[in-house]
Amino acid sequence: MKEDFKSYYAVIFTSTQNKNIDGYSEMAEKMETLAKQQKGYLGMDSAKNDVGITVSYWDSLEAIKNWKQQSEHLQAQQKGRQYWYSWYNVRICKVEREYEFLKK
Amino acid sequence: MKEDFKSYYAVIFTSTQNKNIDGYSEMAEKMETLAKQQKGYLGMDSAKNDVGITVSYWDSLEAIKNWKQQSEHLQAQQKGRQYWYSWYNVRICKVEREYEFLKK
Repeated sequence: MKEDFKSYYAVIFTSTQNKNIDGYSEMAEKMETLAKQQKGYLGMDSAKNDVGITVSYWDSLEAIKNWKQQSEHLQAQQKGRQYWYSWYNVRICKVEREYEFLKK
Repeated sequence: MKEDFKSYYAVIFTSTQNKNIDGYSEMAEKMETLAKQQKGYLGMDSAKNDVGITVSYWDSLEAIKNWKQQSEHLQAQQKGRQYWYSWYNVRICKVEREYEFLKK
């Protein structure tokens, strides 16, 4: 491990959705905008085929906890369980090491 | 945190690909088959739009290291850098907590 690597956190959100997801796109967009404004937010990656994967990155467990409890996000979570998701899984992870490749 | 939660590891692989990815699908399928046969392999999630995200789960850092160095996988990695990926990022993470929702 590089000496200067500062560990941070990743939240891996995997999900499957119902057929009818009216209102989901608007909410997802709204939540992305809101997450970016949170203290400790570092970034996000997202892709969806049969399963959806959203990974968000945070500088501390406290930042993750605060985002989970943010009031508009709480409402979105409730709607998600009620209308949009047939299943989801949330993993809170500590990023211990990282490396990158960039084609020259 | 639940007392009985046994931590494990996740490798978050995010990537962007070149336009011409001849041979990639076959290799990806082969690598998935091979990964499943590795000691310590626990599972995998994968989705791709603009960015590809593959998260694989492992029971130890040693299992991750062994998979990274597996000979056919090494060849696949080299081909990946040479032909298929314009960029990728690998994050080695410790899963510290997890929860799930299943629609009744």
